[in-house]
This record gives sequence, C-alpha cells and structure tokens, in this order.
Amino acid sequence: MKKQKSVKASFTTMTELVLPNDTNTLNNLMGGRMMHWLDIVSAISAQKHSNRIVVTASVDNVSFKNSIKLGSVVTLEAQVTRSFNSSIEVHVNVYAEDIPSGTKFKSNEAFLTFVAVDQSGNPIDVPEAIPETEEDMRLYEGALRRRQLRLVLAGRM
Amino acid sequence: MKKQKSVKASFTTMTELVLPNDTNTLNNLMGGRMMHWLDIVSAISAQKHSNRIVVTASVDNVSFKNSIKLGSVVTLEAQVTRSFNSSIEVHVNVYAEDIPSGTKFKSNEAFLTFVAVDQSGNPIDVPEAIPETEEDMRLYEGALRRRQLRLVLAGRM
Amino acid sequence: MKKQKSVKASFTTMTELVLPNDTNTLNNLMGGRMMHWLDIVSAISAQKHSNRIVVTASVDNVSFKNSIKLGSVVTLEAQVTRSFNSSIEVHVNVYAEDIPSGTKFKSNEAFLTFVAVDQSGNPIDVPEAIPETEEDMRLYEGALRRRQLRLVLAGRM
Amino acid sequence: MKKQKSVKASFTTMTELVLPNDTNTLNNLMGGRMMHWLDIVSAISAQKHSNRIVVTASVDNVSFKNSIKLGSVVTLEAQVTRSFNSSIEVHVNVYAEDIPSGTKFKSNEAFLTFVAVDQSGNPIDVPEAIPETEEDMRLYEGALRRRQLRLVLAGRM
Amino acid sequence: MKKQKSVKASFTTMTELVLPNDTNTLNNLMGGRMMHWLDIVSAISAQKHSNRIVVTASVDNVSFKNSIKLGSVVTLEAQVTRSFNSSIEVHVNVYAEDIPSGTKFKSNEAFLTFVAVDQSGNPIDVPEAIPETEEDMRLYEGALRRRQLRLVLAGRM
Amino acid sequence: MKKQKSVKASFTTMTELVLPNDTNTLNNLMGGRMMHWLDIVSAISAQKHSNRIVVTASVDNVSFKNSIKLGSVVTLEAQVTRSFNSSIEVHVNVYAEDIPSGTKFKSNEAFLTFVAVDQSGNPIDVPEAIPETEEDMRLYEGALRRRQLRLVLAGRM
Ligand SMILES: CC(C)(COP(=O)(O)OP(=O)(O)OC[C@H]1O[C@@H](n2cnc3c(N)ncnc32)[C@H](O)[C@@H]1OP(=O)(O)O)[C@@H](O)C(=O)NCCC(=O)NCCS
Ligand SMILES: CC(C)(COP(=O)(O)OP(=O)(O)OC[C@H]1O[C@@H](n2cnc3c(N)ncnc32)[C@H](O)[C@@H]1OP(=O)(O)O)[C@@H](O)C(=O)NCCC(=O)NCCS
Ligand SMILES: CC(C)(COP(=O)(O)OP(=O)(O)OC[C@H]1O[C@@H](n2cnc3c(N)ncnc32)[C@H](O)[C@@H]1OP(=O)(O)O)[C@@H](O)C(=O)NCCC(=O)NCCS
Ligand SMILES: CC(C)(COP(=O)(O)OP(=O)(O)OC[C@H]1O[C@@H](n2cnc3c(N)ncnc32)[C@H](O)[C@@H]1OP(=O)(O)O)[C@@H](O)C(=O)NCCC(=O)NCCS
Repeated sequence: MKKQKSVKASFTTMTELVLPNDTNTLNNLMGGRMMHWLDIVSAISAQKHSNRIVVTASVDNVSFKNSIKLGSVVTLEAQVTRSFNSSIEVHVNVYAEDIPSGTKFKSNEAFLTFVAVDQSGNPIDVPEAIPETEEDMRLYEGALRRRQLRLVLAGRM
Repeated sequence: MKKQKSVKASFTTMTELVLPNDTNTLNNLMGGRMMHWLDIVSAISAQKHSNRIVVTASVDNVSFKNSIKLGSVVTLEAQVTRSFNSSIEVHVNVYAEDIPSGTKFKSNEAFLTFVAVDQSGNPIDVPEAIPETEEDMRLYEGALRRRQLRLVLAGRM
Repeated sequence: MKKQKSVKASFTTMTELVLPNDTNTLNNLMGGRMMHWLDIVSAISAQKHSNRIVVTASVDNVSFKNSIKLGSVVTLEAQVTRSFNSSIEVHVNVYAEDIPSGTKFKSNEAFLTFVAVDQSGNPIDVPEAIPETEEDMRLYEGALRRRQLRLVLAGRM
Repeated sequence: MKKQKSVKASFTTMTELVLPNDTNTLNNLMGGRMMHWLDIVSAISAQKHSNRIVVTASVDNVSFKNSIKLGSVVTLEAQVTRSFNSSIEVHVNVYAEDIPSGTKFKSNEAFLTFVAVDQSGNPIDVPEAIPETEEDMRLYEGALRRRQLRLVLAGRM
Repeated sequence: MKKQKSVKASFTTMTELVLPNDTNTLNNLMGGRMMHWLDIVSAISAQKHSNRIVVTASVDNVSFKNSIKLGSVVTLEAQVTRSFNSSIEVHVNVYAEDIPSGTKFKSNEAFLTFVAVDQSGNPIDVPEAIPETEEDMRLYEGALRRRQLRLVLAGRM
Repeated sequence: MKKQKSVKASFTTMTELVLPNDTNTLNNLMGGRMMHWLDIVSAISAQKHSNRIVVTASVDNVSFKNSIKLGSVVTLEAQVTRSFNSSIEVHVNVYAEDIPSGTKFKSNEAFLTFVAVDQSGNPIDVPEAIPETEEDMRLYEGALRRRQLRLVLAGRM
C-alpha cells in the first residue's frame, strides 16, 4: 500500500520584495518574475510531499488581473492538492501588499504539476496526498478534471 | 482605420546559456527560469508590434516534455499571431541544443497574451497584425478560439 | 495615545532554495547570503508592523552552528518582538531542510533592529507592539536588555 | 582533410532588455554589461561552429558611440568569420531599439577570438569555416590581418 | 611549532558600486547587501591567511549609522586580527563615497569569525597571525575578549 | 588653468570571488564576466578622478592567457594614466589567486577609456592627471600613442 501524507505537510510560504530589476519601465512587476516564483514555491511544496527531486511537468493557464508596484511585498502560498502515480498537483495563491497604504489583495492563483524523479531523471512513485479541510477536498476533487485537461493540451491523451 | 503591421516585424530571437543557478541538483534547467525567458522574449515581440509598454495578461498552459542540461544553448523564437483591441497574442517556439553532441530539439511551445498600456497603465489600441505565411495564417485563425478558452479560464467569460 | 498592533500581524515566512551561486566550493551555503535573507525577511516584518519604509539600524551577533547543503530548503520566520519610539526589534528563526533525507533542523536565530523613516529618511513613530503568547512575552521582556546592549555597542549609550 | 562548415551555421541572435541593474545613474546601459553580452553571444556562435567548449582568447578593441537607454531592446548578431587551427574569430553586430520612439540603430561592432578546447582545456582542431555571401567573404579576408594585429598586441608574434 | 604569518598578508580591499537592486524605495543601500559584502571580503581575507576553505562561524553586532545612496562607491577593507586554533577573527572597515560631491565617510566597522575546514568540513589548524602596527596590536589584544563574548552569546562558554 | 590631480587618487582595488554562475562547464571563469569587472573597476577609478558620472568610450584589445578556476580570488587594480579634455584613460592589472595552492599570477592587463559627462550626458572637462612614479610616467607617455591607435580603430581619425 502507498504511503499517505496530509496535504498540510506540503504547505509552503514564500515572501518576496519587488526589486527594481523585477519591474518594467512603469515600475510594475513583470509577469516572468512572478512565473519564476510560482515555479520555485510549488516545486518546494512538491518536494516536501515526495522527499524527492521534482521536475516541472506543466504550468496551467495563469492570468494577471492586477499590476504590482515596485517595493510591494509578494506572498506565495503553495500546497499539494493531489498526487497520482509519480505526478503531484500543487495549488498556489499569490497575495500582493502595498506597505505604505496597507492594502493587500489576492493577485493570482495557479496550478502546477511536478513529477518526482530518481537520480537518473525517471518518474518514481510518490505518497498519496490526503486532503483535510473542505477547501482541500474541493481542490482534491477538481484535480482529476484539471489533469485530464492538461494531458489533452499536452497531446498525451 | 487601424494601422496594419505584418507579424514578421515582431519576430524576436533570444538565445540563453543554461548556467549553474538556472539548474536543479540534477543539473537540469528549472521550469521557472524557462517561464521567465518565455515572458521576456514574447514581451519584446509584443512591444515591437505595438511600440508600447506591454504587460503580461496571461500565459497559456505550458508543458515540459524534455529536460535541458547545464551548458545547453536555449533558443526562443517569438512572433505575434494576432492582435485584438489592446491585447496581443504571441507564439513562442523553444529549441534546446546540446553543444558537445550537436543535438538540437524543440523543447516547448507557448502562447502568451500581452496588453499594451499608456504611461498611466491604461489599455490602449494596437495595430492590426497581418499574417503572411500559411503557418502565420494557421496561428492567426486559432487565436480566436484560444482567446475564448483563456477568457473562460480566467472567469471573464 | 499610540496605535497598538499585535506582534502576530507582523509574522512573515520566507522560503529559499540554496542555489549554486549561494554556495562555497564545499557546496555549502555561504554565511553572507544567509545574512542577506535575514535582513530581507525581518525588514518585511518591520514594514508590516509600521506600514512605513524601514532601514536596518543594527544586526545583533549571529552565529552559525550548522552548514546547509546545496539544494536545501531554508525557511525564515520573522516576527516583531517589541517597538520603542521609532525603532522595532525583530526576531528571526531559521530552519534548514534537506529534502532527500527529510531532515529539518533549526540552524540560526537572530535579532535585528529597524527604524521606521519618513520620505526624507527621518525617524518617525511606530505603533506599539502587543505580545500574545508566552513566547511573545518572553521575547518582549528581553527586548529592553538587548536594546541597551546594542546601543552601548554602537557607542550611543 | 579538415571538416568544412558554412559560417551561416554559426549565426546566433541574442536579445536583451536593458534592466535597472544594467544602467548607471543616468539610466544608460553600462559598457561592462554590453561586453558581457558580446562574450556570451559570440561564445555560443563559436560553440555551434566547433561543437566544443570554447574559451575566450581575446576581445578586439570595442568602442561605444551611442548611449542606450533603460528599457531598450538590444539585439546582438554573431557569426564566425574564419577559423584557423584551434582558434575561431567571431564578428558581432549590436543593434539597440528604443520601443516608444520606434528608433533602431547599430550601436557596436566587435571581433572576439575563441579557442576550442578538450576536457583538459588543451587547444583542439576545429572545422574550416566557409564564407558564403560577399559580406562573409570580406570578413573572412580581413581575418588574417586582424589575427596578426592581435597576436602582436598579445606579445605572441 | 605553528607557522606564523603577518596579518598584513591577509589585507583585502573590495570595491562595490551601489546598483538599483541593492537599494530600497528611498534609493538607499539595504543593510542585507552590506552584510553580504562584509562576509565575502572577510572570508577572502581569512582564506588568504589560512590557504584553506573557511566557513563563517559568527558575525558580531553590526550597526548602521549612515545611509548610503544609489550610485555610491563602497570600499571594504578587511584584515585578520588574530587566529586561535582553527578560528580566525577578521576586522572590516567600510567607507562610502558619494562621487558627485566627493564626500567619503566611514560607514561601518565589523568583526567576523571564520573557521578553516578541510574537505570534509572539519576544523583544521591555521597559522598564527602576527600583528605589526600599533593598530594591529590593539585589535590583536581585544580579540580575546571579543572571542569570549561571542562564545558566551553562542552558548558555547 | 585646469585643476590637477595625482593619478594615485584614482587607485581602486576590487576583489571578486569566482562563483558557479561565472564559470563555463570546465569550471573556469568566462571572459565576459572578467570584461564586466574590468569595466566596473576602471569606471570607479575614472569617477574618482573626475568626480563625475563617466561612460565607457572604448575598451582596448584584451587577451586572456590563463584560465581562472572556480573559487579563485580575482583582484583588479585600476588607476588613471592620463586625461585629455573630457576623456580619461585607465589602466588595469588583474591578478588571480588559487587559495588552496597559494599561487597568485597576473592574468590580464587592460586599458579602458571613459568620458566624463554632465547630467544631460554631454562631455565635460576633467582635471589633469599627474603621474608620480616611473611606472606612472611610462603609462602616461604611452597614452598618447594608444589614444591615436584607438581613434583610428574607431574610424574617428
Ligand atoms: C515530466 C517527465 C519526467 C515525464 O516523463 P515521461 O517519460 O513522459 O513519463 P510518463 O509518460 O510515464 O508520465 C509520468 C507522469 O508525468 C505526467 N505528465 C507527463 N506530461 C505531463 C504534462 N504535460 N502535464 C502534467 N503531467 C504530465 C503523467 O501524467 C504521469 O503522471 P502519473 O505518473 O502521476 O500518472 C518528462 O516529460 C520530463 O522529464 N519533462 C521535463 C521536465 C523538466 O525538465 N522541466 C523543466 C524544463 S525547463
Ligand atoms: C564553525 C564550525 C566548523 C565549528 O565546528 P565545531 O564542531 O563546533 O568545532 P569546535 O567546537 O571544535 O570549534 C572549532 C572552532 O570554532 C570556533 N567557534 C565555534 N562556534 C563559534 C562561534 N559561534 N563564534 C566564533 N567561533 C566559534 C571555536 O571557538 C573553535 O575555535 P578554535 O579552534 O580557534 O579554538 C561548525 O559549527 C560549522 O560548520 N558551522 C557552520 C558554518 C557555516 O556553514 N556557515 C554558514 C552558514 S549559512
Ligand atoms: C537608524 C537611523 C535612522 C537613526 O537615526 P538617528 O538620527 O541616529 O536617530 P535617533 O538617535 O533619533 O534614533 C532613532 C532610533 O534609532 C535607534 N537606533 C539608533 N542607532 C541604533 C543602533 N545601532 N541599534 C539599534 N537602534 C538604534 C534609536 O535607539 C532610536 O530608537 P527609538 O526611536 O525607538 O528610541 C540612522 O542612523 C540611519 O539612517 N542609519 C542608516 C540606516 C541604513 O541606511 N541602513 C543600511 C545601511 S547599508
Ligand atoms: C587560449 C588558450 C587556450 C591558448 O592556449 P596556448 O597554450 O597559448 O595555445 P597555443 O599557443 O597553441 O595557441 C592556440 C591558439 O590560440 C590562439 N591564441 C593564443 N592567444 C591568442 C590571443 N591573445 N588572441 C587570439 N588568439 C590567440 C593561437 O593563435 C592559436 O590559434 P590556432 O590554433 O588557430 O593557430 C590559453 O591561452 C588559455 O587557456 N587562455 C585562457 C582562456 C580563458 O580562460 N579565458 C577567459 C579568462 S577570464
């Protein structure tokens, strides 16, 4: 039987300061830097779940509703939603906070999929991910449908 | 009437060397760095088309089939496929080349959408994008459907 | 009367991956990178407390008991302990986790002091910091003594 | 007989965005960053020609006629001009483009020489480089004279 | 008998330009970057003394009296003050220079302790450090007292 | 009459540690990083001489005799040799030191020319540079000839 692990154990928070080199000439955070952070925080979350090196298999559609200013504090919260054989889906919430005005808003949400690999880079089985809260459950249930969509988009199904 | 511009005018090639800090402990490129490069090359392409500052509006699902080794040469080729009012869709092909073995393969393909903005960050109209080759035409025609899908996924439609 | 704010509101977690450029030729994290991270996480914590730009006024003695390997996940948890007029003391706990072995240990502890400043860089009053738990209380009480020691060491008392 | 390779096969384009950290306090690109980019793009070009690791043997005199503004797009185009035994001369053209004004100008031109090396860092023979266009031919013919000048300047002739 | 080496042989100067990414939104150098530089320059100094890889064992209290502007030139001068068995104390003076106004001031002073290690990371004996000038002597004599203070603070004495 | 300043006043030492991201897959420093450092150290030297913002006007031929290993300490020593109207020639000596073996060698020598500019980027007169030692004198005298050579190479004479 597969090892089981609560999704809570994979919870990972990353905080970043928006620095000049992360911004465009309007002094707003560039999307690519955000994508980079999304990948790092969710890779760490998937590693905590699997205690393995993981590689990014796919990043679902990400959309950017709000611009984020130079000097803002960006908080990314990642947690595994569900695991399959060797693959692990991670959900990330991103919040941006403008310190002087004290305003904080949710800026992004994303799903990334990682595959746990051995030293030669071959897929390897991972523990089962057990949801706890209702929110965990809702994300767990949606995972199957999202998995199908992305395997279709990747031409694998 | 709207200004017209050939999609060719937006063609942009970026070449990157995979350096140690871009890699995981298996010495393979991390997905987040690739996402960062995808955003930069396609933002430049959208800027060439619009002669405006552009901001990332969305990144469509990206999947990673192949790992890319430390020291590889990564080439990203971006070109506008179609523009709407203020938004511009860009298509990117990514190739990775392992120098010692002389092998080169296509590693990724992605679609990103940018919005042209004025100095205050408000959306502003962009020139029409005119496809030329058959491939341009195929990408131009698919753009409408992809636009609908991403507006649905972003909960805007 | 001064505005009051719970120390909890300033709690900030930062997670970092140890990358090649952060390491020495033994593949261990260099102390300077850790100091850099300590400063960023605690500055963000002090900014959350004060809703002001803050500047580093001092970093208390930091000691390094354990080396941290390339590829490890470093988690820094910062929280304000006490504020005075314009100055804010922040306490940071640092944990390092080696993913393949699943071992996690506390690697460092540090106290940094920030001063909230206005747009011209002059010190400005900050809210009072209210401790909640017993641990918060213990850190709150020690703050006065640490403040004296560091003002003496800085030749200001 | 030596393997032959068209110089076209080594053509490499690199595109860079001028970011804040690349600029001086007048918000103009610093020369050193440009030198860094020149070296990377031409090293990649020499690697494509030789399918070997290459090391920089010399950089000919580079002069800077125009300043390049923050936010500009810099395009570097490198191509091998001629190879000798183990050494390869690469020519680079640099263009800078100011997006809002839509102006593009040639900002630099440079010649760099690389030596192909084996795993121990010893020089190793490279394919012959075959010029195609008239421009290729002109650069090919000048290469001998430039080689002499730089070996004299390096005290090797 | 232990090898002896003059402290002068470890003298190391590092010069840094304050770049945009090193600054906060007031355009002043952030303390964490300074701490990073302090560690690098003094690690190099300790390495010159010991001809060994060294690891940071502790950083004594550092205080920041003055802000340092974007574009300033920061000069750090490190020198070993005294060595014990495997540990080496380094003293650093930091100067900041504002080029347009031609003003230069001493901004910081710090003591860091390094331990020389072998390839497995175990402490290894280092040469004795011989002071020369009166200033060297003064720093040499204070080293014993500072060592006791920091071992007490680290809970090792 | 022009202000006079000893060349000694512009002496600048920069020390850098060769980090993973600075190296190629043979673990040797890449030439482009060295060029970047050469530009920074000599720009600082020219700024000290002129108390002005300076821009790189040209970099004379640089050749690389020796490879420099990961973990080495690189020391760059820059000093103004002579100034003309608005331009300043700087000479740099580069030394590389391998810590474990204690070997230090001179790896490069370079001449760079900077132009002092005002806030609008227009050239502005600089103080006369007065040589002191015999070596200073030798470099001062050669400056005229090197200036002619580089103006010819830049097609300006
Ligand atoms: C991810 C990877 C290991 C999958 O290997 P593979 O040989 O295709 O393996 P399989 O077909 O057996 O699939 C393995 C798992 O990956 C999943 N997977 C494959 N492609 C996927 C995609 N595009 N999106 C999501 N999951 C995917 C499969 O569903 C399967 O999951 P499961 O084991 O939980 O059922 C491989 O494609 C790879 O190495 N990709 C590159 C990863 C990388 O380096 N990313 C960064 C690039 S810059
Ligand atoms: C520093 C280190 C090698 C000491 O190892 P140890 O097993 O504790 O060794 P010992 O108790 O025998 O002490 C060795 C020396 O370190 C000194 N030392 C230990 N802790 C110290 C501290 N906090 N401050 C100053 N010196 C200290 C001891 O005084 C002793 O010095 P001496 O040999 O000159 O008398 C070990 O603690 C270590 O590896 N720390 C991590 C270093 C590191 O990776 N730093 C960067 C982290 S991001
Ligand atoms: C910190 C700074 C604003 C203090 O300004 P100042 O004119 O000395 O102000 P004051 O003497 O009125 O002190 C203001 C507060 O700073 C505190 N402070 C000053 N030096 C301190 C030190 N070394 N450690 C801790 N607190 C210190 C004082 O205790 C006082 O606190 P309080 O208001 O809560 O009572 C000023 O020294 C400064 O700008 N330093 C540089 C900060 C910086 O740029 N850091 C990064 C450098 S790389
Ligand atoms: C370049 C290098 C490999 C040449 O090695 P060498 O032992 O001097 O070899 P040789 O004298 O046999 O010359 C080999 C080739 O290099 C060329 N060469 C040497 N110095 C050169 C220079 N300054 N400029 C241009 N070509 C040069 C020679 O002309 C010869 O070319 P050929 O084989 O096509 O006829 C060696 O000098 C070296 O390793 N330099 C350091 C490279 C480096 O690490 N650069 C980055 C430093 S930060």
